[in-house]
Amino acid sequence: MNIIYPGTFDPFSLGQLDIVIRARQIYDTVTVAVSDNPRKNPMFAFEERIEMARLAVDEYDGVEVIGFTGLLVDVMRERGIKFMLRGIRGMLDFEYEFQMAQVNRSMLSEFEPIFLMPGEKYMVLSSTFIREVAVLNGDVSGFLPPKVAEYIKAKI
Amino acid sequence: MNIIYPGTFDPFSLGQLDIVIRARQIYDTVTVAVSDNPRKNPMFAFEERIEMARLAVDEYDGVEVIGFTGLLVDVMRERGIKFMLRGIRGMLDFEYEFQMAQVNRSMLSEFEPIFLMPGEKYMVLSSTFIREVAVLNGDVSGFLPPKVAEYIKAKI
Amino acid sequence: MNIIYPGTFDPFSLGQLDIVIRARQIYDTVTVAVSDNPRKNPMFAFEERIEMARLAVDEYDGVEVIGFTGLLVDVMRERGIKFMLRGIRGMLDFEYEFQMAQVNRSMLSEFEPIFLMPGEKYMVLSSTFIREVAVLNGDVSGFLPPKVAEYIKAKI
Amino acid sequence: MNIIYPGTFDPFSLGQLDIVIRARQIYDTVTVAVSDNPRKNPMFAFEERIEMARLAVDEYDGVEVIGFTGLLVDVMRERGIKFMLRGIRGMLDFEYEFQMAQVNRSMLSEFEPIFLMPGEKYMVLSSTFIREVAVLNGDVSGFLPPKVAEYIKAKI
Amino acid sequence: MNIIYPGTFDPFSLGQLDIVIRARQIYDTVTVAVSDNPRKNPMFAFEERIEMARLAVDEYDGVEVIGFTGLLVDVMRERGIKFMLRGIRGMLDFEYEFQMAQVNRSMLSEFEPIFLMPGEKYMVLSSTFIREVAVLNGDVSGFLPPKVAEYIKAKI
Amino acid sequence: MNIIYPGTFDPFSLGQLDIVIRARQIYDTVTVAVSDNPRKNPMFAFEERIEMARLAVDEYDGVEVIGFTGLLVDVMRERGIKFMLRGIRGMLDFEYEFQMAQVNRSMLSEFEPIFLMPGEKYMVLSSTFIREVAVLNGDVSGFLPPKVAEYIKAKI
Repeated sequence: MNIIYPGTFDPFSLGQLDIVIRARQIYDTVTVAVSDNPRKNPMFAFEERIEMARLAVDEYDGVEVIGFTGLLVDVMRERGIKFMLRGIRGMLDFEYEFQMAQVNRSMLSEFEPIFLMPGEKYMVLSSTFIREVAVLNGDVSGFLPPKVAEYIKAKI
Repeated sequence: MNIIYPGTFDPFSLGQLDIVIRARQIYDTVTVAVSDNPRKNPMFAFEERIEMARLAVDEYDGVEVIGFTGLLVDVMRERGIKFMLRGIRGMLDFEYEFQMAQVNRSMLSEFEPIFLMPGEKYMVLSSTFIREVAVLNGDVSGFLPPKVAEYIKAKI
Repeated sequence: MNIIYPGTFDPFSLGQLDIVIRARQIYDTVTVAVSDNPRKNPMFAFEERIEMARLAVDEYDGVEVIGFTGLLVDVMRERGIKFMLRGIRGMLDFEYEFQMAQVNRSMLSEFEPIFLMPGEKYMVLSSTFIREVAVLNGDVSGFLPPKVAEYIKAKI
Repeated sequence: MNIIYPGTFDPFSLGQLDIVIRARQIYDTVTVAVSDNPRKNPMFAFEERIEMARLAVDEYDGVEVIGFTGLLVDVMRERGIKFMLRGIRGMLDFEYEFQMAQVNRSMLSEFEPIFLMPGEKYMVLSSTFIREVAVLNGDVSGFLPPKVAEYIKAKI
Repeated sequence: MNIIYPGTFDPFSLGQLDIVIRARQIYDTVTVAVSDNPRKNPMFAFEERIEMARLAVDEYDGVEVIGFTGLLVDVMRERGIKFMLRGIRGMLDFEYEFQMAQVNRSMLSEFEPIFLMPGEKYMVLSSTFIREVAVLNGDVSGFLPPKVAEYIKAKI
Repeated sequence: MNIIYPGTFDPFSLGQLDIVIRARQIYDTVTVAVSDNPRKNPMFAFEERIEMARLAVDEYDGVEVIGFTGLLVDVMRERGIKFMLRGIRGMLDFEYEFQMAQVNRSMLSEFEPIFLMPGEKYMVLSSTFIREVAVLNGDVSGFLPPKVAEYIKAKI
């Protein structure tokens, strides 16, 4: 059984890795699907975000990384995946995810969202905060998988 | 008795039409007031949004469409309208609408906001999601009044 | 056009009177419908709550008070009323009211809830808090219509 | 792989059956665990709630029903189950479930909560509302699995 | 400068002790005010709750424990305290505390609520959950100050 | 004892002044820390926002204004301040502030956030709404300290 984990992953964080590992206890494969999302004006380019996601998960079996443009439900239809993974850290997260899931289900009736809870120490780690700290030259290496931290250091 | 229904209407959705129809059961006229709102960086131009709102409601009696720039309370004062209509789909919507209503009431003491609940099938239809799906070349015609869907198709 | 305003009214507060007055600007009549609700374990008996609601509104035209047991939608069906009034003071209020409204609409398809915003000074006045203050022998007369305050004083 | 679905099930609703069916797409077995919970003052006795849950799921393979007293985590430890299932209908649900899940994880480190989203038509069906309608002699058979509806009718 | 910390403290938890210690960094004295609150149907008697609060804080300077019946604002007025302390763990907590604070300020204009954030490991420890676990014979000693845990063990 | 009050202050409002005055009852000094925050795309330039904050507080003892770029926790470490002040107007405010505070505490363990409640008449005054009204040529002088209102008038 397979599940897709869509996101901007700007950059891929330790909290997101924690969610992937938890999902792998349940599913045979997890497809990390990096969204192009140019309207969100990401800090890292599409290719960089894909590359960082690959570095983050490369020692885990049964986890693949793809990039996609267009609708998530089209990717799921093509690949025959009906489960979608999201990690939830709090109520505001949840309200947004819940609306998105209802919209997606209205476009793909067998769409099945699965919400997991990250480990306690990853609760406060949103990618937004990691980016804000990084922009202000704060040290974000403690929030990132080691290879992602190295990749970013090498780039700058 | 008249009520004003302000919004960006980018574009005017089936859910918003549903709210107009519900309000017409209570009020003699509904004034759909399309806000210029250039800071929100809308997908459609001001004139296009006015035109689509007109197409959406043109077979309904007692519904007019206007465009406005400036403060909503100034439009209401000029036209002698004190009731303002908003549809509410969930808690996050509500918190924002509630703050806006308090601010407006602080500027126009007789300001009276009326919150209605859309039909169940329109609950998940925010204009934000419709725009996101459209940008990704998804089919949004099922979320829009037929004439609005045609207008958009003709434009592209 | 008529609207029903259901509640426990334990006791009828100034904030609830404010909502009735606002609704009367829109509707020809407002039916205050006091629910029996013995499971909620109210502080005042059903007849007392009806009596206090009558005292609160008796100088307002177009406002009647009834008591009811059973389902609200049955009362509405019998009386041919499809609009239901609720005042909203904040997000938690709203979430509860919204669920109730969806359930009621599933039982009476033409059910139409109207949510109004109380005046700023009534925002913090829930009946729960008024009861808690009263139990602790605090002075609640400033939170109640004068005749309701007198009624309670006379009882104790 | 097994998952436990704890609850008071007072009574077992169509929405809860929908969640069980969704979970069975992912897990080999679902253990519906009816909590004794006398402090919640349930409408139906512990044995009745277990019986109704059994009637609700008896035509589904891979679903068992147990009753339990004491801590959920103790039941999970004994049976070697680490996944726990909950359906989520909105933000208030979520906040409560999230706190419960954090407490349970603090007592059983491998505790893994899985949150699923019920089908749209079951979104508004809380057991609380079903009970309130039933108490007021409203017809709740449309909210319940047919055998549960029959069981309740036979009892009264 | 003095601050009052009101609550039911049923029983006094490690998270509440954490809040007291944080407040003592700012205020010269903290008055823990145990509310009688018989309507909340507490698990422990009023005198037991006062005794446990005393045991919890007895090695901390500048912290006193009192019991009170009646309105909090009356206690504050008598003692000349205008600051009130509350710990906040999440959004639902906050909404309730915020309403309470607005009501109290309407009765005592100089009322000044101060909200502090407990340490991360105390975030999930509500007294409600501690009581639920205790009722089910779960081990709650890790959630309580050692002397409170001993007191409860000795009682049972 | 000192406390820092960080923000964009775009522009400094009467509600923010109210929070500063409340904090001064507790702390010997309040450091208003204007964040550069170019990514937030503020309406007023960094120097203008610092200047307006200075004008707003210049008749209050024990209040200083600084500008800063980079991480708040670095400013706090340098100055030996561990308390951080925030005013809270509602639930959405709170969720955001709470996450920020958890992130900051993860970077500076002695970080201690203090949340105060503005006076009732400042509850609805967010800087966002003030800016929106200003952009639409609405009169915002009633929402601002007199000297800030003059400064803005002089600029335009």
